[in-house]
Amino acid sequence: MVLVLREAFNGVRRFDDIQQNTGAPRQVLSARLAQLVEHDVLRRVPYQDPGQRQRYEYRLTQKGLDLYPVMVALLEWGDKYLADNSGPSVTLTHKECGAPIHAGILCADGHEIASARDVRPVPSPR
Amino acid sequence: MVLVLREAFNGVRRFDDIQQNTGAPRQVLSARLAQLVEHDVLRRVPYQDPGQRQRYEYRLTQKGLDLYPVMVALLEWGDKYLADNSGPSVTLTHKECGAPIHAGILCADGHEIASARDVRPVPSPR
Repeated sequence: MVLVLREAFNGVRRFDDIQQNTGAPRQVLSARLAQLVEHDVLRRVPYQDPGQRQRYEYRLTQKGLDLYPVMVALLEWGDKYLADNSGPSVTLTHKECGAPIHAGILCADGHEIASARDVRPVPSPR
Repeated sequence: MVLVLREAFNGVRRFDDIQQNTGAPRQVLSARLAQLVEHDVLRRVPYQDPGQRQRYEYRLTQKGLDLYPVMVALLEWGDKYLADNSGPSVTLTHKECGAPIHAGILCADGHEIASARDVRPVPSPR
């Protein structure tokens, strides 16, 4: 699921391309895409290449796009703990200034929060 | 898996408490905890209540603690898209200043990044 979403965020939208990049078996990938469409994370958009039948590509919905902080945080964690010695294969940079990005936690007063120990869970009034 | 981690981040460490809060069947929970220990996200620490046999509680390792940005981002997404009408059950606040926190994406130059569209993936030199 995460691999499929990673492809979507990298702009890979077509079944064969996603299949090639993830290495997922076609049936598994098909089922995953259907689940993501059903949960309104991806939407199917028809396209037609010259001389081919109509097919569908998969684009992130707003609900899907809003998963981006989750993806960046997961990617960062994976780079730290799961990557091989050659390091991360992709660096994410801020388009505007070119600096590398990272997932962080901020408070409404603008402080960046370093760890879970600096956070207090407060039950909401119901 | 996510529910078990949420409990861990809320300081819930003992099997029966985690079981009660998540509602997970005992066998499922047992298997999940074993997986998280195997992947070095949780560690088992012995404890003994008076008159009871020795048991184990589950604490986050550093690798587990480093999943916090993922958890906060997921929680935020869930509050936006999956919560019922009564709103989120917990608000996370910065201990130091009391302001609510949110998961964000920052660049090394200190800009906060609003969306995936502002980010460029750059293949790393291998």
